[in-house]
Amino acid sequence: MRVIAMNEQLVGVARGNAPADLLLRDGWILDLFSGTFFRGDVAVKDGIIVGFGASAAREVINLDGAWLIPGLIDAHMHIESSQLTPAEFARAVLPHGTTTVMADPHEIANVLGLVGIRYMLDATEGLPLRVFFMVPSCVPATPLETSGAELSATEISEALSWERVIGLGEVMNFPGVIEADPALHAKLAAARGRPIDGHAPGLSGPDLWAYTLSGPRTDHECTTLAEAQEKLRAGMHILIREGTTSRNLNSLLPLLTEHSAPFVHFCTDDRHPKTLLNEGHMDDLVRKAISGGISPEMAIAASTLHTARAYGLPDLGAIAPGYRADLLVISDLDTLKVAKVYVDGRLVAEDGCCTVDLPHHAAAGVSGTMQVDLERLSFRIPSGRGAARAIGVIPDQAMTEDRRVEPLIETGEVISDLEQDLLKLAVVERHRGTGNIGLGLVQGFGLKRGALASTVAHDSHNVVVVGTNDVDMRAAVAALVDMGGGQVVVEDEQVLASLPLHIAGLISDRPLAVVAEKARELDRAARSLGCVLPAAFMTLSFLALPVIPSLKLTDRGLVDVDRFEIVDLFVSE
Amino acid sequence: MRVIAMNEQLVGVARGNAPADLLLRDGWILDLFSGTFFRGDVAVKDGIIVGFGASAAREVINLDGAWLIPGLIDAHMHIESSQLTPAEFARAVLPHGTTTVMADPHEIANVLGLVGIRYMLDATEGLPLRVFFMVPSCVPATPLETSGAELSATEISEALSWERVIGLGEVMNFPGVIEADPALHAKLAAARGRPIDGHAPGLSGPDLWAYTLSGPRTDHECTTLAEAQEKLRAGMHILIREGTTSRNLNSLLPLLTEHSAPFVHFCTDDRHPKTLLNEGHMDDLVRKAISGGISPEMAIAASTLHTARAYGLPDLGAIAPGYRADLLVISDLDTLKVAKVYVDGRLVAEDGCCTVDLPHHAAAGVSGTMQVDLERLSFRIPSGRGAARAIGVIPDQAMTEDRRVEPLIETGEVISDLEQDLLKLAVVERHRGTGNIGLGLVQGFGLKRGALASTVAHDSHNVVVVGTNDVDMRAAVAALVDMGGGQVVVEDEQVLASLPLHIAGLISDRPLAVVAEKARELDRAARSLGCVLPAAFMTLSFLALPVIPSLKLTDRGLVDVDRFEIVDLFVSE
Repeated sequence: MRVIAMNEQLVGVARGNAPADLLLRDGWILDLFSGTFFRGDVAVKDGIIVGFGASAAREVINLDGAWLIPGLIDAHMHIESSQLTPAEFARAVLPHGTTTVMADPHEIANVLGLVGIRYMLDATEGLPLRVFFMVPSCVPATPLETSGAELSATEISEALSWERVIGLGEVMNFPGVIEADPALHAKLAAARGRPIDGHAPGLSGPDLWAYTLSGPRTDHECTTLAEAQEKLRAGMHILIREGTTSRNLNSLLPLLTEHSAPFVHFCTDDRHPKTLLNEGHMDDLVRKAISGGISPEMAIAASTLHTARAYGLPDLGAIAPGYRADLLVISDLDTLKVAKVYVDGRLVAEDGCCTVDLPHHAAAGVSGTMQVDLERLSFRIPSGRGAARAIGVIPDQAMTEDRRVEPLIETGEVISDLEQDLLKLAVVERHRGTGNIGLGLVQGFGLKRGALASTVAHDSHNVVVVGTNDVDMRAAVAALVDMGGGQVVVEDEQVLASLPLHIAGLISDRPLAVVAEKARELDRAARSLGCVLPAAFMTLSFLALPVIPSLKLTDRGLVDVDRFEIVDLFVSE
Repeated sequence: MRVIAMNEQLVGVARGNAPADLLLRDGWILDLFSGTFFRGDVAVKDGIIVGFGASAAREVINLDGAWLIPGLIDAHMHIESSQLTPAEFARAVLPHGTTTVMADPHEIANVLGLVGIRYMLDATEGLPLRVFFMVPSCVPATPLETSGAELSATEISEALSWERVIGLGEVMNFPGVIEADPALHAKLAAARGRPIDGHAPGLSGPDLWAYTLSGPRTDHECTTLAEAQEKLRAGMHILIREGTTSRNLNSLLPLLTEHSAPFVHFCTDDRHPKTLLNEGHMDDLVRKAISGGISPEMAIAASTLHTARAYGLPDLGAIAPGYRADLLVISDLDTLKVAKVYVDGRLVAEDGCCTVDLPHHAAAGVSGTMQVDLERLSFRIPSGRGAARAIGVIPDQAMTEDRRVEPLIETGEVISDLEQDLLKLAVVERHRGTGNIGLGLVQGFGLKRGALASTVAHDSHNVVVVGTNDVDMRAAVAALVDMGGGQVVVEDEQVLASLPLHIAGLISDRPLAVVAEKARELDRAARSLGCVLPAAFMTLSFLALPVIPSLKLTDRGLVDVDRFEIVDLFVSE
């Protein structure tokens, strides 16, 4: 149940034979084992809680009756979604009381494979934020696209041998699981005995049983209470997610009862810079749970001790001797106002600000990921017979409609049609220099001029570009090649706004405030070109994701997601 | 969170493509993840629960609305206390719904070391009872006695590498822990990252913090609610014990709340044959908890899923796909009437009887443990000056009083004094043929004739013998040598009653009913000699246990437990 070695020094401090490093005095301490607060002290030595008192301490902090709770744990998330380096992510979330995250480096692994995972490990080494990793199970996500890397069971086994890599990341290919795909099952076997995260939206009945049987024991994709109840009954831990796009907390909160508490956790999955800045991180989920009627004791348990136990981390998530001193001083319990954050007994954030220097990690080996030959780049779409398929975007959703349209034809080519809001969309392969380009039409952006392009394009993160004309589309891709990846708005071959993401084309090296401001600039610039979507770049990033219905575009072409195959632009009758 | 490999066949059965082995239909199924019963079916294939239904099954059992719950798990126990072989123990407890035990082979390890542990592993192989082992941490229990073996950190590491050995057994030497004894800490280090059971009666405050810091994370020695509450707050899982002698369930039941449930479990520790026969096993604890006001859902959770999680057994303790099909059909929930017991999906007990053949395991290497040279055996106690120490027994307690008496002297020797009820007591070393004998006086047996002797004598299990005269004491020891160990009542050199325990001097190879009957015969015979104690052999077995106050006797001599040293029989002023 625990891993810390006995330490003579700690024992001596516990017994009062030597001074503690830190004594937090006179607070309301959360005892999660009985679900109660008690008035008392907590002593820390070498980053470990040694007891509820000390004979002496190098530093004494009077809590004056403030609450003391364990640091919050995010059960499932992707650091890449913040577009921040791990250090900047830590700087952003520590003040919100998040001290541990289970990170699935799925995005960077799709670009860089083990090199990307290794970068995330190196870049989280020595951070005051505790980052554990789940090895991505689905790289590439589908055979219908070109990713930057492939992770087979062999690579997964290797990554599982690395420190802080604790399990297998969300197994999204649930059809492969229940139809006994051998390569996927080899991955499940490689992770046997470790935590395995599931991802099985809507799976139910016999298929759900077959899925849980095969290994995955969590799910963070429930959108209705009934779905969550069925999965819980099938033995899955339910991770209640409150991300930027997917927000399930309100619907799922009734699942969290005193009986289910050990099996229900909180996670952010994907939080974008704007959400981090405006709404916070794990504190936001706990706060919402409390205001939704869950007792503070239970809401905190759900995001601390029970999560730690579920992921096999025996010395995290509680305030008791032998646990790591990841502690939050809370000045108002009902609104979960985080006054101070301690990690390993060290003050790392106070009053909303990170108070420690964070190690800088060079992005060697993870930049220069733009293998695009601009000379060969062509957005030309030859005309065809009959109706064409168009991707119909739905604002703020990853799902699209598969529409039938009559495209505008000029000199034997399909061109963007502003009247019908039918724009050219392209996905340009950027990892291997294959020259692959997928071309299609998209309806719903409302652009009247220029082009938008992004290297954040789930899950393979090729370049996705939408535009009113080929010249600006080319200019947008060229700008991204120049920046080493990122997001850009172009008009008349001029860059109006850009967010460089030179780490894997996914991550900036600037602080949250800068990244969020640049994202706002991108949105403003897109709107200035006529864009009507509330979050144009988020919508754009999902257009290349062929696991979510109905019509998507990859570097291999248009994907009919329901049939899970490449289809022609023109519908042959 | 789980260890079972994906299995194509299981997935196929879950999805209805192939028939299940067993379908339990139309019961009230306990869903421990939400703490509710639901009406439904459970399908089993290859011993694994595959889902809540099946398209077809080789065998269909209609539950007719009976309750279906997971098999009960004993969190801490010693099989040797039952005086039964593992197979006979399984036969005894399976009908009571116990399907898994965490066994600490502390007694046999004190006699035979790793050979004894190996025997327990071999003898539990292939049993329908699932037996996991905790390696005994305290062999020998003290340096004040001669045990049959010693287990250092090296032996403990070896045993920890064996299958089904999951952690370190109760760390009784708590002074050694908190005073940083290097040999003990080497043992704790060997078990790092594994479950480590504690044993710290009365430990509190800084000493308790120092103890839990060092590794032990459970305690089954709490006798008061306040003690249990303090230990729970210090992060220890509390095992509520209801054994033959130590019965803590009534006192500790208020500890079990919906908040504490994941951290509070049930255990039997030591249940003697009579208790097994008359009161049952884990069903008895759950039944008492329910009649004590705990909901059946929580009482069952405490002795199934939460215990399994605490001991790192991810596929036990719940009814859900992927869990082992250890299932109890309960015909009356409030009285926990166990109608049928399934282990690995196989019916193993029904209506109070074990219904399967159990593998027989030869007791090779664990008999012949009586290394006593009867020629050299002498119970002569030379007279001394002044008052003598006498062990004052307290009926039904392991604790004794340290009394001062004037012994009866005859021709320069101390002899048993029936008038004062001051009898000779001897502990004869039996493991190594050292010829060691400890001699002393005991008050409270009330014997008027004959002698009682036993090779069950905690914790080193040397021969303990009490008698009214040396001749019968010798005859009693000789009878035990003949039997290869056991318990015996002798009068006028004739054996009046005996229970042979030829396996390590601790275990019979007969069934429970026979062993319990022989134990009754021993008690009757002891009473016929004047014995006034309600459980003479239990009292006798604790007289050699030098970790429980106040005065005890080992093969090295009288032990003043408070001073933790050997003392003379005669008090020198």
